[in-house]
Amino acid sequence: MARKSPEDEHPVKAYGWAVKDGTTGILSPFKFSIRATGDNDVRIKILYCGVCRTDLAATKNAFGFLSYPLVPGREIVGIVSEIGKNVKKVKVGEKVGVAPHVGSCGKCKSCVNEVENFCPKLIIPYGTPYHDGTICYGGFSNETVRDERFVFRFPENLSLPGGAPLVSAGVTTYGALRNNGLDKPGLHVGVVGLGGLGHLAVKFAKALGVKVTVISTNPSKEHDAINGFGADAFILTHHEEQMKAAMGTLDGILYTVPVVHAIAPLLSLLGSQGKFVLIGAPSQLLEVPPIQLLFGGKSIIGSAAGNVKQIQEMLEFAAKHDIIANVEIIQMDYINTAMERLDKGDVRYRFVIDIENSLTLPSEV
Amino acid sequence: MARKSPEDEHPVKAYGWAVKDGTTGILSPFKFSIRATGDNDVRIKILYCGVCRTDLAATKNAFGFLSYPLVPGREIVGIVSEIGKNVKKVKVGEKVGVAPHVGSCGKCKSCVNEVENFCPKLIIPYGTPYHDGTICYGGFSNETVRDERFVFRFPENLSLPGGAPLVSAGVTTYGALRNNGLDKPGLHVGVVGLGGLGHLAVKFAKALGVKVTVISTNPSKEHDAINGFGADAFILTHHEEQMKAAMGTLDGILYTVPVVHAIAPLLSLLGSQGKFVLIGAPSQLLEVPPIQLLFGGKSIIGSAAGNVKQIQEMLEFAAKHDIIANVEIIQMDYINTAMERLDKGDVRYRFVIDIENSLTLPSEV
Repeated sequence: MARKSPEDEHPVKAYGWAVKDGTTGILSPFKFSIRATGDNDVRIKILYCGVCRTDLAATKNAFGFLSYPLVPGREIVGIVSEIGKNVKKVKVGEKVGVAPHVGSCGKCKSCVNEVENFCPKLIIPYGTPYHDGTICYGGFSNETVRDERFVFRFPENLSLPGGAPLVSAGVTTYGALRNNGLDKPGLHVGVVGLGGLGHLAVKFAKALGVKVTVISTNPSKEHDAINGFGADAFILTHHEEQMKAAMGTLDGILYTVPVVHAIAPLLSLLGSQGKFVLIGAPSQLLEVPPIQLLFGGKSIIGSAAGNVKQIQEMLEFAAKHDIIANVEIIQMDYINTAMERLDKGDVRYRFVIDIENSLTLPSEV
Repeated sequence: MARKSPEDEHPVKAYGWAVKDGTTGILSPFKFSIRATGDNDVRIKILYCGVCRTDLAATKNAFGFLSYPLVPGREIVGIVSEIGKNVKKVKVGEKVGVAPHVGSCGKCKSCVNEVENFCPKLIIPYGTPYHDGTICYGGFSNETVRDERFVFRFPENLSLPGGAPLVSAGVTTYGALRNNGLDKPGLHVGVVGLGGLGHLAVKFAKALGVKVTVISTNPSKEHDAINGFGADAFILTHHEEQMKAAMGTLDGILYTVPVVHAIAPLLSLLGSQGKFVLIGAPSQLLEVPPIQLLFGGKSIIGSAAGNVKQIQEMLEFAAKHDIIANVEIIQMDYINTAMERLDKGDVRYRFVIDIENSLTLPSEV
């Protein structure tokens, strides 16, 4: 039996922008469908969606295991338009944030311990099969249906476009600090890279009372780091004296960049038992000198996204401390230019698509 | 002013075997001197000294920063022959173990937190300057003087030669399990490599109630792993089916080998939030695929030796659970052959030098 087309697979018509395959990376209008709202489901009208490096990588098939056509988008905020009969967490008309994952097994140790983001069967929101075998589509679209487990109340006083990146980039940085004990006054954390992740890392760390040094290859980021986001210091990666002066001074490093820098000089900035937390996702190999981990008992820790419980906690923390991403709001049809600019690091600091006001039903072919 | 010769630098004459420089790696008889026993010092007649891979590396100047002539030896047990007036921890005539480090700053965060093994100013026992600026010499010698902080009571019922490797290799494996939460029944730990470190890792893990799988390139190690040390399973690194079947099953891995294997297949054996604990000291770079750390929140943790407090605790645990190293006791003049054999992995599982009965005063030149 031939597989149904994306447009006919489910009863609810939907539309967005997709890459047709992983070769060109070019996005264009696309029609698909979403499942009817199940008993535990929340149907969401999408208002804004952030554009992250995972989206960019997915458009170019960098992961190798995704299905195409693919609708990117992991940083969704919207309004509840329908709920299933078992749903208790949110009501119709409420503003919600949506997790950057759409399913997990619910039974493994990670799921039971409420760190379902580490479930080996975690389902990401696009290019992979959902529990029912149909392919998931992301947030560059007008609507989505999600299990209520992966939907959160969005604080009233938080900007919708500025808050959209929090559900993924935000919790990635917040979780990296919280889960690795880098969240206390008196500690000193280095943030490598000042982009979408990096600028949120600085904001969360400062709100937690941590001393922050931004470490960057780009001198033009110093002003924003210090004056814009409140970092305490700024070091240029290739400035030997600055690097030397900072040796052994950091309790932790958040490595937020999507490419691999030389790791050894960064590890030398860590003090004893310092933690190098990897939150960027470079495709190249990290080259780690063992002796640098052995002396001083240092560690390299992977920390991807966050769990549902922590996302809700982070949103409330952000609301309390007035933390949102610095965003450039774009129209849907600007996305290909935005992706090119993102690839060059030419965004301060996150593109967010104004879905509600710029995504239109594709005309018939 | 010319520096005094090793023989004349201090008032107490001593002798042992040294490498004259870091080129040939050949050890030969050597005369030096040790300081008079200070108020906080313990003078120790050395009975046995283990031979570890750090010693082997030091004889060949693999670290690049050591001074020569160099007397190796980090795994010392002996008898107290004299104590300073402030010493309370041990008495003359008592059996003692000696830490694999001889000094630390005493003031930094690591020292204050009793993890002085992570002190950035940690002084290792040979080839480096002590607090007074004179060079330290290791345990391939008749006597040593140490600050009492770095000397421990040696349990009465523990074999002296079998216990010697515990003060370094023992605490390295015990600490790697204890300090990373890999010390509880119900957990499953992989031990990569079954050598001096590896065999002790298996013994300590089993005594802690942990399930153990040995992962090795050498099929001839299976018998000892299972029947000798009580491991629950044995996997050959290059056996694709065995590796595949074990994917995602381990809570932690102790990487005990001195060379770098491919890391990616080993990381894939870890379950979510699994810990890859590096205790071997390969000189090559580890090549780590970032994505393998990110998905599942895995980490790579350096864990070198142990602190004074933990060494004493480990010795008592070992005595209670009858844990000693499997040793081949050698005479001092066999050391060059032993080093060659160690380099080839041809020892089951630790050489220990019978210093008391085989080290003699070098004849005059």
